[in-house]
Amino acid sequence: MDEIRAEEIIRARLSENRYQHSRRVAMVAREMARTFGLDETKAGLAGIVHDYAKGMPGYELLSIAREHDLLEDEVEEKSPDLLHATVGAFLLSRDHGLDDEEVLNAVRSHTLGRVGMTDLEKVLFLADLIEPGRDFPGIERLRCLAMRNLDQGMVQAIDLTLRYCMDQGRLIHPRTVLVRNNLLSSLPSDRTLW
Amino acid sequence: MDEIRAEEIIRARLSENRYQHSRRVAMVAREMARTFGLDETKAGLAGIVHDYAKGMPGYELLSIAREHDLLEDEVEEKSPDLLHATVGAFLLSRDHGLDDEEVLNAVRSHTLGRVGMTDLEKVLFLADLIEPGRDFPGIERLRCLAMRNLDQGMVQAIDLTLRYCMDQGRLIHPRTVLVRNNLLSSLPSDRTLW
Repeated sequence: MDEIRAEEIIRARLSENRYQHSRRVAMVAREMARTFGLDETKAGLAGIVHDYAKGMPGYELLSIAREHDLLEDEVEEKSPDLLHATVGAFLLSRDHGLDDEEVLNAVRSHTLGRVGMTDLEKVLFLADLIEPGRDFPGIERLRCLAMRNLDQGMVQAIDLTLRYCMDQGRLIHPRTVLVRNNLLSSLPSDRTLW
Repeated sequence: MDEIRAEEIIRARLSENRYQHSRRVAMVAREMARTFGLDETKAGLAGIVHDYAKGMPGYELLSIAREHDLLEDEVEEKSPDLLHATVGAFLLSRDHGLDDEEVLNAVRSHTLGRVGMTDLEKVLFLADLIEPGRDFPGIERLRCLAMRNLDQGMVQAIDLTLRYCMDQGRLIHPRTVLVRNNLLSSLPSDRTLW
């Protein structure tokens, strides 16, 4: 699947707002890939398709996840929208023949992260949050960190996400905390950029 | 072990500051036990002894935990002070014959919580945070919630703890997140006290 075909699929499937968000994520992901010496084409493609399953009703996400053994934690049954990442990757592969595992992994981990994420996965995770259409407290610092250091950007992004979950009284997916601990342990101890 | 003997043990073992903290925790724990219809004697005893292993050097906590199979997650190896709860319960039982499992469980879970905590465990966890010597942003709201509803108090206490960990760039113990999710799922959905 190339990016032009991917854009057609996403434009036909998502709302105009979500389509424009996807394009901006692709743009930022390409820019970050260039900065960190990664494959820009894969980054752009991942950006365009990452929200493929976004907006699907929770019961449908849950049903597909149950049928194809994609459930990981009971939090997903209470907040099924979290499944749009995993289910999206599954549907892109099954229904559109997307077979690039690096791109599929980036789609899979773009909401909760993954212990041992590749740089391409980190780029998509961060681009989704810092694309120019986003606005939330702390975004400028996150943009700055994300463009300098992927791991520090990831920790900051996860912290903002956890704080948001707590502000909203939402459940926290345990995987995100494992990802944060793993990243934090790999940072140099002086963490001067903090 | 009665509370008078426990006070002697703790006074001999901890610094004057920690001893006074323990007495205040015992006082608040007894008050909360009275409010929620629990055993005041057990609550007071748990309050006095809860920090038995506090202040032990990290390598010693880790060594005892390793020897007696008390380690649960790698976060404890990086932040061994977290082990003072589990190791404290172990030492109180081994060295002082404390055999009340309800009190020992409260000591064990007073730092990280436990999925399926009893009310006595929640009382100790909260009393440790809200005793009159404590002062941190959000404590008044926490005191108010904790005296009205143990589960809502626990969620609020864990949220404050997680925010503190993030502010400090510390690791988050996965168990605490599981405890929070479990408590949050058991709250009525209208959560009018929030």
